[in-house]
Amino acid sequence: MGLRETKMERTRQLIADTAFELFTAQGFAATTMEQIAAAAEVGPRTLYRYYATKEALLLTFVEQRLDEALDVLRAQPADMPVPQALYKLLDYVLRTVAESGDRIIAVYELAWRTPSARARLSDNTSRWREELAAEIARRMGGRSAELAATLASANTMTVIEVSVRTWVESGGRSNMRRITHRALDLLRGSGVPVATP
Amino acid sequence: MGLRETKMERTRQLIADTAFELFTAQGFAATTMEQIAAAAEVGPRTLYRYYATKEALLLTFVEQRLDEALDVLRAQPADMPVPQALYKLLDYVLRTVAESGDRIIAVYELAWRTPSARARLSDNTSRWREELAAEIARRMGGRSAELAATLASANTMTVIEVSVRTWVESGGRSNMRRITHRALDLLRGSGVPVATP
Repeated sequence: MGLRETKMERTRQLIADTAFELFTAQGFAATTMEQIAAAAEVGPRTLYRYYATKEALLLTFVEQRLDEALDVLRAQPADMPVPQALYKLLDYVLRTVAESGDRIIAVYELAWRTPSARARLSDNTSRWREELAAEIARRMGGRSAELAATLASANTMTVIEVSVRTWVESGGRSNMRRITHRALDLLRGSGVPVATP
Repeated sequence: MGLRETKMERTRQLIADTAFELFTAQGFAATTMEQIAAAAEVGPRTLYRYYATKEALLLTFVEQRLDEALDVLRAQPADMPVPQALYKLLDYVLRTVAESGDRIIAVYELAWRTPSARARLSDNTSRWREELAAEIARRMGGRSAELAATLASANTMTVIEVSVRTWVESGGRSNMRRITHRALDLLRGSGVPVATP
């Protein structure tokens, strides 16, 4: 990364952190882009160059962590069995949540109360699921890999969602790793009903 | 339904059909709420009372069909095994798509090209998935039903999404029921990789 990129990355991070502080202190709706620019000591035009909307500013933290988790999967050896490779991705998510628990709780609580943010999160989650499906299909290879990969990707995202949500709703007190493992056990066994004619 | 409700329902349907014609004729972005009101011969205020946004107008057809599918599931006898009850829901979706194929294809093609519509669809899909999970949990009963139901609901939605998408992408020429059954077979067997430590 060149000097200019490093500086830009630092500014981007500073803006996101400043916005997050304002959101938690005074609420998402009450915070304006102008206030965020002033608090981060950048001009409004600079702010908009980095983040087009307040929703982007709120969710960038979660979206970055999900993208990193995809990179973790992509970095696994091509001959690693898919279930083990998928676990590396899940394990990254579990570790990240444990490390930045307070921030994740705050982001989710703000996002759930804000329809525009929830819509953006849903939309980005769909896109993320498609990227994950493409990577799983690449690793599985063979015919019908695409369909199986789409189903595996959706399952993985659901396991993440349900684990994070249960954990956030408990105020960070429940054991997230245990919820994840219970969900995986259900999927691996025959604990999840499947439509049958 | 009283006379007044019947009239309101007819107006609501007329507005949605008129909007759909304009969207397909001149594109979603180029169509204004004012044009829709004029073409449906209602005042702009009446239009907004029925539909707050253009996105709502575009997606109401898909959303109604999904809600009806939920009602089909809710109407099944309480003692019907969950896999069979879930199949009734899927079967309703498959039959609806077969009956209104052209409209479904047009709605999806417009929605995919329109970020605001895609975001609304994602958001509504999440809410629908939660309602479906609640109904599955009610039918399963017992401990850990909630987690299994959430996973079953997500699977069901994914099966619908992947079936409809594959079918839309083939211009309505592929056999949607066959795609659905292949997906269900994969889920029932061990064809879908699950993360494993």
